[in-house]
Amino acid sequence: MCTTCGCEEATHDHRHEHVLDLEIDVLAKSKRYAADNRKWLAERGIRMINVMSSPGAGKTTLLERTIREAKKEFFVIEGDQATALDAERVKAAGARSIQINTGAGCHLDPHMVRHALEDLDPPRGSVVFVENVGNLVCPALFDLGEAERVVLLSTPEGDDKPLKYPHMFQTASLVLLNKIDLLEHVPFSLENFTLAVAKQSPRATVMHVSAWKGQGMGDFYGWLS
Amino acid sequence: MCTTCGCEEATHDHRHEHVLDLEIDVLAKSKRYAADNRKWLAERGIRMINVMSSPGAGKTTLLERTIREAKKEFFVIEGDQATALDAERVKAAGARSIQINTGAGCHLDPHMVRHALEDLDPPRGSVVFVENVGNLVCPALFDLGEAERVVLLSTPEGDDKPLKYPHMFQTASLVLLNKIDLLEHVPFSLENFTLAVAKQSPRATVMHVSAWKGQGMGDFYGWLS
Repeated sequence: MCTTCGCEEATHDHRHEHVLDLEIDVLAKSKRYAADNRKWLAERGIRMINVMSSPGAGKTTLLERTIREAKKEFFVIEGDQATALDAERVKAAGARSIQINTGAGCHLDPHMVRHALEDLDPPRGSVVFVENVGNLVCPALFDLGEAERVVLLSTPEGDDKPLKYPHMFQTASLVLLNKIDLLEHVPFSLENFTLAVAKQSPRATVMHVSAWKGQGMGDFYGWLS
Repeated sequence: MCTTCGCEEATHDHRHEHVLDLEIDVLAKSKRYAADNRKWLAERGIRMINVMSSPGAGKTTLLERTIREAKKEFFVIEGDQATALDAERVKAAGARSIQINTGAGCHLDPHMVRHALEDLDPPRGSVVFVENVGNLVCPALFDLGEAERVVLLSTPEGDDKPLKYPHMFQTASLVLLNKIDLLEHVPFSLENFTLAVAKQSPRATVMHVSAWKGQGMGDFYGWLS
């Protein structure tokens, strides 16, 4: 039996302590960067919104429609493992945008975001969206210095996701249930979803939208302003 | 200017080298565990299949239907941040199952899987499914000792995902395009998807299924046997 983790295996070369120390160090440094970003943004009166979801839940489509309809100049920092497809889409919709490719990385970090903010150089009073890497796990753990966290869930993903990915939903300021237009075609219980979100995100605002078809988007624009 | 990473910031306390060393160490240890799992499985003639996708792409539904229809005893190792919902679902369908909760962790690792294998103790010649944490990024980087990697993408997620999450698709032995029943209700081009998969997963088998409605599942059972 391994005396470090209590597992059954004898030949078990543990380094958990070192990993843990380093993780704490990395997270502490990340928090300092996030706090510094928050100060930088506050000094300029800029509101940064961190948009997170699974891959394909509709983050880019939400931003495209918002940029086209909300009659305001927006700035977008795009995070993806690879390609500049999303930055191209939001640019075509009318925003100024920078793409960050994370390679093997599973989330944006506040240091990357700070470089992108300085490059974009948004004017006083503007709104910056950060479209994080599509991932319901890792991005939840990294504060970027944002004012708000928007978490999208799409109806085809299922109503149990707030229970299965608690960290993400616990830190949301706004939960958008997207692809509401598919509700009749997928096994999704609005009642179960509402109960799950009430449990995980009791302080979050909840809205039902279809970013693709446009349903409910007025509520989102209202929340934005 | 930071001389370590070349970024513009002056006050930049880097520890990249230490993080990198430790990552290499952790990954090397993980590879040793994976190799040991592969040996353990080979000695018992057990075939382990690592099933990966975004949250809500249909992994559990695929396993439920397979367990009910493929007339064979299956074993399932379930990975989730929280809850035992998926283990309960596949047990109700007739499999023997163990749930691993990863907490803040974004993927299963081969050491966790080895404990689960020893607990399940599947008989010679059996098939073990590992349903990984719903995540298109991190699970791709961790070999568990599996014989095959099945990657699900669901049509509502969009046809560009193989390009945006290259690591996952590059290591797939089988790519299942799931929720084919929703094709007429979502903006998804089969042509773009086929091109993207041909680029990222040139050696993978590709099938179109609806795990919920049953379409195309015979092909999957054929592949399994």
